[in-house]
Amino acid sequence: MQVEVIPSVNETTADDFINKTVIVIDVLRATSSIVTALEQNSIGVIPVKTVGQAKDICEKNDLLGGERFCKKISGFHLGNSPIELIHTDVQGKRIILTTTNGTRAIDKAQKAAHVLAGAMLNASACASAALNLKRDIVIVCAGTMDRFSLEDGICAGLIIDEMAAMEENLELSDFAKAMRYAYSQVKDRLQETILESENGRRLRKLGFEEDVFFCARVNMYSKVPILRNHILEPFEF
Amino acid sequence: MQVEVIPSVNETTADDFINKTVIVIDVLRATSSIVTALEQNSIGVIPVKTVGQAKDICEKNDLLGGERFCKKISGFHLGNSPIELIHTDVQGKRIILTTTNGTRAIDKAQKAAHVLAGAMLNASACASAALNLKRDIVIVCAGTMDRFSLEDGICAGLIIDEMAAMEENLELSDFAKAMRYAYSQVKDRLQETILESENGRRLRKLGFEEDVFFCARVNMYSKVPILRNHILEPFEF
Repeated sequence: MQVEVIPSVNETTADDFINKTVIVIDVLRATSSIVTALEQNSIGVIPVKTVGQAKDICEKNDLLGGERFCKKISGFHLGNSPIELIHTDVQGKRIILTTTNGTRAIDKAQKAAHVLAGAMLNASACASAALNLKRDIVIVCAGTMDRFSLEDGICAGLIIDEMAAMEENLELSDFAKAMRYAYSQVKDRLQETILESENGRRLRKLGFEEDVFFCARVNMYSKVPILRNHILEPFEF
Repeated sequence: MQVEVIPSVNETTADDFINKTVIVIDVLRATSSIVTALEQNSIGVIPVKTVGQAKDICEKNDLLGGERFCKKISGFHLGNSPIELIHTDVQGKRIILTTTNGTRAIDKAQKAAHVLAGAMLNASACASAALNLKRDIVIVCAGTMDRFSLEDGICAGLIIDEMAAMEENLELSDFAKAMRYAYSQVKDRLQETILESENGRRLRKLGFEEDVFFCARVNMYSKVPILRNHILEPFEF
């Protein structure tokens, strides 16, 4: 089974994903929020690209979530904060989510055989789900405004490390190996490393330090969001 | 001083380099060969993109060097092998070199304030020269056919590690940090790591295993090629 990692979302075309399982990673904070929402028993998250699309789709019981430049969108119920999700009753509700990078990456992966959402929070479960689907795997680091983001690369390395513990015959691309090495080097200081990343510092300045710490927690959750008919629902093992 | 790393040559535009010092890295094998050529007292290496350009420029005492798909170009004096260079008398001669990725990366960096060639072989000297030039630094991993190559990323991490030992105030981009972490994780097994990379395996299959081992040697040489009037000459400290 081949495992490849893409450094940031613009460095790929949708056709690269055909017949593959794609894991989209946007640790700070889209995929961490999506995983948290499902863990809080939201029935699903619909990722959309624009604020207009989010409002068009939103029905009576749905919640609107999203951010632009890390801040909640005016008139929306939720921002893009996993900690806010924990303190909100999302049980049985759908969330329509639009974020700057994460939802763009999910959108680009539409041609894949399967699309999963990965984060530090669900790394082991995500690795297991991806192996379960028995196809070559492409891990897409969402990045930030077309640039590589450290926390996404480290999370890719973590998920690969989890996969390697479950399956011997993985063929890692050069970039996949580099991310696994980088993760191994910092695995005992993930929180500090991520807090010092470009996004970590940006979020701290905006008052979201607790979100950064939360998103750096490993294997807290076991739900794996999988895209089915444009909605991210829990993967059934 | 800011230090940024570009994963592979197509992920950048020439304008990104304006006013900066660019270090081009193509460990297997263009920049390792260029460094070796200067160490063998070649007076300079002229990197060109095409075989035709190489032949047009070549004068009576020059040597033609280069590869396509890792193999020597028909009618050329030299391939792209540092070990072959060691066994060839290049003293006092110019080498006109065309390779698939390395010389393309050097060509793209023409708008930079300074262009250096970096390799494992001259990592410490290259770090020192780049700091000496007192500008923000962009390290370009040449990669292979528009894809990231592990050995170039690891070498970027090594050069950054050398810089960090010489200069406290470095501001590393997220990708620069990731490469430094990856290097730190494998620094005690560089040769095996590089032999197992995609290019390492390709070269081994073609009979160039000794070149791979040679290119993985750290700080063997102190010459740093710098581009002046389209020719890579030794940097004067």
